[in-house]
Amino acid sequence: MVEALILHEDPRSGNCYKIKLTAALLGLPLATRQYDITRGETRTAEFLTQVNANGRIPVLQIGQGAPEGEGARFLPESNAACWYLAHGSALIPEDRFAQADMLRWMFFEQYSHEPNVATLRFWLSILGEASLSDEQRAQVMPKRLAGCAALQLMDGHLADRAFFCGHAVTLADIALFAYTHVAQEGGFRLAEYPHVQTWIARIQALPGFVPMA
Amino acid sequence: MVEALILHEDPRSGNCYKIKLTAALLGLPLATRQYDITRGETRTAEFLTQVNANGRIPVLQIGQGAPEGEGARFLPESNAACWYLAHGSALIPEDRFAQADMLRWMFFEQYSHEPNVATLRFWLSILGEASLSDEQRAQVMPKRLAGCAALQLMDGHLADRAFFCGHAVTLADIALFAYTHVAQEGGFRLAEYPHVQTWIARIQALPGFVPMA
Repeated sequence: MVEALILHEDPRSGNCYKIKLTAALLGLPLATRQYDITRGETRTAEFLTQVNANGRIPVLQIGQGAPEGEGARFLPESNAACWYLAHGSALIPEDRFAQADMLRWMFFEQYSHEPNVATLRFWLSILGEASLSDEQRAQVMPKRLAGCAALQLMDGHLADRAFFCGHAVTLADIALFAYTHVAQEGGFRLAEYPHVQTWIARIQALPGFVPMA
Repeated sequence: MVEALILHEDPRSGNCYKIKLTAALLGLPLATRQYDITRGETRTAEFLTQVNANGRIPVLQIGQGAPEGEGARFLPESNAACWYLAHGSALIPEDRFAQADMLRWMFFEQYSHEPNVATLRFWLSILGEASLSDEQRAQVMPKRLAGCAALQLMDGHLADRAFFCGHAVTLADIALFAYTHVAQEGGFRLAEYPHVQTWIARIQALPGFVPMA
């Protein structure tokens, strides 16, 4: 029996898009349930007790259960959900070093890239600059510099590689693609990273590719 | 042939300690090479070109090469290095969901825990409060709140579990233990998280356990 896969998501979130792109590249059916994170819809008592005590999306729900939700399992953290979907597929290399190296880029994405590149997009394009707090405003420049450093590091790495872990696409590419290809919405200039731009086009040409909503 | 394993580290870093604890629990020999991050020793041209273009430790070096470094492979990102060491061991569950769930906690650690719990420890106990910039000072309270939320989430999860992914220790426990057990050095009060305290004692009682330097 194939268990139902349901993504709890906000369609504007690149972290949610990673999971949809992984499912699309693998040809896996994925239902979605949508929330508006700017209206606190992932902080309700129901969401916190049934879906994710951390109050965040995405969450990948595995299994429908009956009544709804019972017996279902919930997996927060975008990159962990991608790992679950891609288990046993070519999107995860089998070689010991290659597998660890792929995870290295996925941890880099969550630590050095997402908190800067994705957060500035969220602040500037989704919340809007006018509604930022003083504390957020003070963080724009440090996040700008750290985001540029992450993009620069990616550009250098891609100078002589088609994908992050060599010749084939892996979850590392999917994880980094999600917020990189919309980095301009956070005020980053992708023209300054030519190898990143070529790599973006390469991802967009993959069989099964789906664009972000 | 068993390849040499060399950890490029700052012994005060919990991210480096994770890798040493993983090696110790697995009985793997691990050489170390030490740097002082507060003196910029991981930002030298030599370090950036030979060890990690991201200028950060830890980096796990696999293989010695001859002359030194040639042919060696370098793995940044603490949790990726732990994954490499633990490959094929009981520290990584084989079950598809359990494996993804373990990674979920490791991504949580890097996104929601380390930037708060570890950063406050670094600022308050290693750099020292007097040498913080205004920008860092403004971040102390947001990081305090986010760090407390991470510890609270851990405490709730551990209320009915011995370890993060059930009955046996995994890399998720090692990743989260590193900065949690020294969270008091960042001004967090572990007495407020009783299940976390019990779990800390459980980790410290594991065969092969080594304390942080």
